[in-house]
Amino acid sequence: MNIYADNAATTKMSEAALNAMLPYFRENYGNPSSLHSIGQRANEALWAAREDVAKCINAEPKEITFTSGGSEADNQAIVTAARLGAKKGKKHIISTAFEHHAVLHTLNKLQKEGYEITLLDVHENGIIFPEQVKDAIREDTCLVTVMFANNEIGTIQPIKEIGAICREKKVIFHTDAVQAAGHIAIDVKDMNIDMLSISAHKFHGPKGVGALYCRKGILLYSIIEGGAQERGKRAGTENIPAIAGMAAAFKDAVAHMDENAEKIKKIRDILIDGLSEIPHGILNGDREKRLPGNVNFCFEGIEGESILLLLDDKGISASSGSACTSGSLDPSHVLLAIGRPHEIAHGSLRLSIDENLNEEEAKYIIETVKDTVRLLRGMSPVWRDLMSGKQQFITK
Amino acid sequence: MNIYADNAATTKMSEAALNAMLPYFRENYGNPSSLHSIGQRANEALWAAREDVAKCINAEPKEITFTSGGSEADNQAIVTAARLGAKKGKKHIISTAFEHHAVLHTLNKLQKEGYEITLLDVHENGIIFPEQVKDAIREDTCLVTVMFANNEIGTIQPIKEIGAICREKKVIFHTDAVQAAGHIAIDVKDMNIDMLSISAHKFHGPKGVGALYCRKGILLYSIIEGGAQERGKRAGTENIPAIAGMAAAFKDAVAHMDENAEKIKKIRDILIDGLSEIPHGILNGDREKRLPGNVNFCFEGIEGESILLLLDDKGISASSGSACTSGSLDPSHVLLAIGRPHEIAHGSLRLSIDENLNEEEAKYIIETVKDTVRLLRGMSPVWRDLMSGKQQFITK
Repeated sequence: MNIYADNAATTKMSEAALNAMLPYFRENYGNPSSLHSIGQRANEALWAAREDVAKCINAEPKEITFTSGGSEADNQAIVTAARLGAKKGKKHIISTAFEHHAVLHTLNKLQKEGYEITLLDVHENGIIFPEQVKDAIREDTCLVTVMFANNEIGTIQPIKEIGAICREKKVIFHTDAVQAAGHIAIDVKDMNIDMLSISAHKFHGPKGVGALYCRKGILLYSIIEGGAQERGKRAGTENIPAIAGMAAAFKDAVAHMDENAEKIKKIRDILIDGLSEIPHGILNGDREKRLPGNVNFCFEGIEGESILLLLDDKGISASSGSACTSGSLDPSHVLLAIGRPHEIAHGSLRLSIDENLNEEEAKYIIETVKDTVRLLRGMSPVWRDLMSGKQQFITK
Repeated sequence: MNIYADNAATTKMSEAALNAMLPYFRENYGNPSSLHSIGQRANEALWAAREDVAKCINAEPKEITFTSGGSEADNQAIVTAARLGAKKGKKHIISTAFEHHAVLHTLNKLQKEGYEITLLDVHENGIIFPEQVKDAIREDTCLVTVMFANNEIGTIQPIKEIGAICREKKVIFHTDAVQAAGHIAIDVKDMNIDMLSISAHKFHGPKGVGALYCRKGILLYSIIEGGAQERGKRAGTENIPAIAGMAAAFKDAVAHMDENAEKIKKIRDILIDGLSEIPHGILNGDREKRLPGNVNFCFEGIEGESILLLLDDKGISASSGSACTSGSLDPSHVLLAIGRPHEIAHGSLRLSIDENLNEEEAKYIIETVKDTVRLLRGMSPVWRDLMSGKQQFITK
């Protein structure tokens, strides 16, 4: 068996995306800023891709700025709102405790510059209540940034409700939709979203490319200075092959979203039911309001990394949480945010599946995880203490 | 004829680069931060590429940070030196009047933050004298940033001499080597370079990827916050296919540098000699100390854009200067910096050739440019005034 269950970290690029990219490497390889026809063909590809990406989220082409990925888009969105706010003397930003580090670390930087940051607590089920946002908004709030779906536990936030509150209060609302885009429906108009970040390699597009939607009327602040590309909002020769690949992958994902989601959810639920049979384990994140492909459990008496290596040995690629923080010894800030104690936050397992995973493979995963948890617990001094009553179980 | 003579804007990606990329799209598509073996294979590719790129400039692998391109690398280098300088109360930066906008606009931003910027004048031949740098360095200078080779007129700067001065004065020396890398020899140790920016698509590598060399001991400041990729210095999932493609293209370019340069220079000189026959034209930039593939002329009585469109119609892709500023009606800041008056700076033509251009094609370019200049002058009211003596010629 060879099962890739780490699609939240990155995905296998689709054939459609590759085919969309290929003509721009060695045929229409021009620089879209060049006036000659080979440059203009590249420019046409750029604008066609912009139109495609815009359509996928119900935006206008001019509201799309291509970036090098989701992190850059998050950084640019937050810095933009912060700078616009500062001009009006508004330096308060609201976010949540379980955002991606591209958001949290940018907020840290702003905090050092004198911005005040409010991080909302996350309910145990991994959801923010719209009322929390409403209550936190102040006269000097310049930005609310709440992720669309969490990258570790997959929980989907009430974005439309939060958007409505922000629009009413005239506060810019940004959402990191890196995990959501291509997987669940996004409509920036209907949801009152002012800025939204996406990343192509999370929906079978290429790495190294993302986009920032920014509602017309909000002037983007450039974080990479230089040439006048992207209407002066993002310098650097546009990465045409990747941009074309992104558009193709996004279109594809949106076109097949419903059928894929149905298929993936069915397998996800088999996985959740199967892994729930493991004693002293707990599902992280709301059972229903989660991404179709996300499964995340904590198992007591287990350390994250060892389970991953053993699963890898059995042909299963999984993760303990965010790939961006792997290698770190700290427990996941997301799991701590939903109230998991340190002891069990260390023993997390995230399976993020796509439409290619079938039932047989899901059953193989369940059996392999069960065996692996049993094996690891057999060697775990913590588990021994738990079993002997020296230490108390946290889960049932 | 179909002749691409705009390699300074972007290049056709090489087969070697494409072949190096392909395995990472749909086979080894892992996220290098993932602990499982598909992620670790990506991580190995990342470090192999880092080693290759480092070798090409005589750096250590750990001194290489991959970015989304040259502009990002320039921004990060300059912001890093500025922040480090500020900590010591040093807020003076030296650069030149003819840098790329990725440098100049970043300096503008810093100026607004209170940094003092000295832009050195450029000699008429397009070269900075090392003494100018020496004379400009002050007690509070935190950075000297001088481009390796100019992107419009191709002139090569005395980088080694400037590096020696900066090292002696203990001032950080950054060079934008986007046009130089892969075309002329770079040795960061021998040249005393502290930071250096490169971009893959300028040497037949992919778009959307570049690198920043930063000498060990200098702590890079992150301009994209988030995950711990690139040892915490550049967040965002690493663009493995592009990074692998960049390494392959750079290795290739360096391996064949001497033979290619010889071949290209021969054709370049044919072009320069041929175009010099056009009356009231002038070569921009030193005849000898220029990139092997760069040809740049001003022709009196000509407007830049019309010549490009007519050449394009004859199958020749050329530019008037930087692609990053095309569409702008202002004359090139580079040509103004070397003292060309506005009237003739508008009539510039840059041909940037690679090793694939042959003598026959060069002759076709010469004849076509001659015809086109004649045609345009025939329709030009400025030319009529010049010929009738109403206006004075600037060139011979």
